Amino acid sequence: MKIIVGYDGSDAAKSALAVAKKHAKAFDGTIYVLTSLVGGTREGVEDILKAKSNLEEAVKSVQNEGIPCEEHLLIRGMEPGQDIVQFAKDHDADEIIIGVIKKSKVEKFLLGSNAQYVILHAPCTVVAVK
Amino acid sequence: MKIIVGYDGSDAAKSALAVAKKHAKAFDGTIYVLTSLVGGTREGVEDILKAKSNLEEAVKSVQNEGIPCEEHLLIRGMEPGQDIVQFAKDHDADEIIIGVIKKSKVEKFLLGSNAQYVILHAPCTVVAVK
Repeated sequence: MKIIVGYDGSDAAKSALAVAKKHAKAFDGTIYVLTSLVGGTREGVEDILKAKSNLEEAVKSVQNEGIPCEEHLLIRGMEPGQDIVQFAKDHDADEIIIGVIKKSKVEKFLLGSNAQYVILHAPCTVVAVK
Repeated sequence: MKIIVGYDGSDAAKSALAVAKKHAKAFDGTIYVLTSLVGGTREGVEDILKAKSNLEEAVKSVQNEGIPCEEHLLIRGMEPGQDIVQFAKDHDADEIIIGVIKKSKVEKFLLGSNAQYVILHAPCTVVAVK
């Protein structure tokens, strides 16, 4: 089973990773930890280094539990939602796990555009973790 | 593990039920199959009987696989999204599984209001199945 986790280092992403580990153990899966940056002028070198270090930490925590794991830092001009869906299609994924951030009172009636994009366009099951 | 499935007899709901069975087997879970109707003047007797028969069929298919299962037909004036979230809170659920319907080309950039409500307001992880 191929499990993709969208990982940006946030608390929601950490919760998503925890669910991914649980599923990987239960279904004998491999976890693909994905960090997506748009690139170009959107992020600076510092943002990229920070994202890379978050990603490496996440991957290490997966490997420490003996779960097969791959690390992917994608910087190819796509919004994260698009990027994750494209990666899932290219790798024939079975499951995408994403963190859903608790919004402020005003925003909480609209799901973030990336989460919405992933759920609508994913070729597979999507797990939304709080 | 308490797994809630929103079930309306659609193909998407059947896919959701299939994922629920897989998770119940892996995590030693109980499946709560939920059908929600608004009631009042919204549905006629025929709609209710049809929903009930769909629900019973689904529950039978779960029981046939030896998975503990409960059947709940809720008609309490709530929209299905609200109803499922309320039930999940009342029963301290661990996971909600819903089917996400593929929309027409025009509609496909907006997630259905019930799915969106569930993902945003659920007290637990939400699995969206195509």
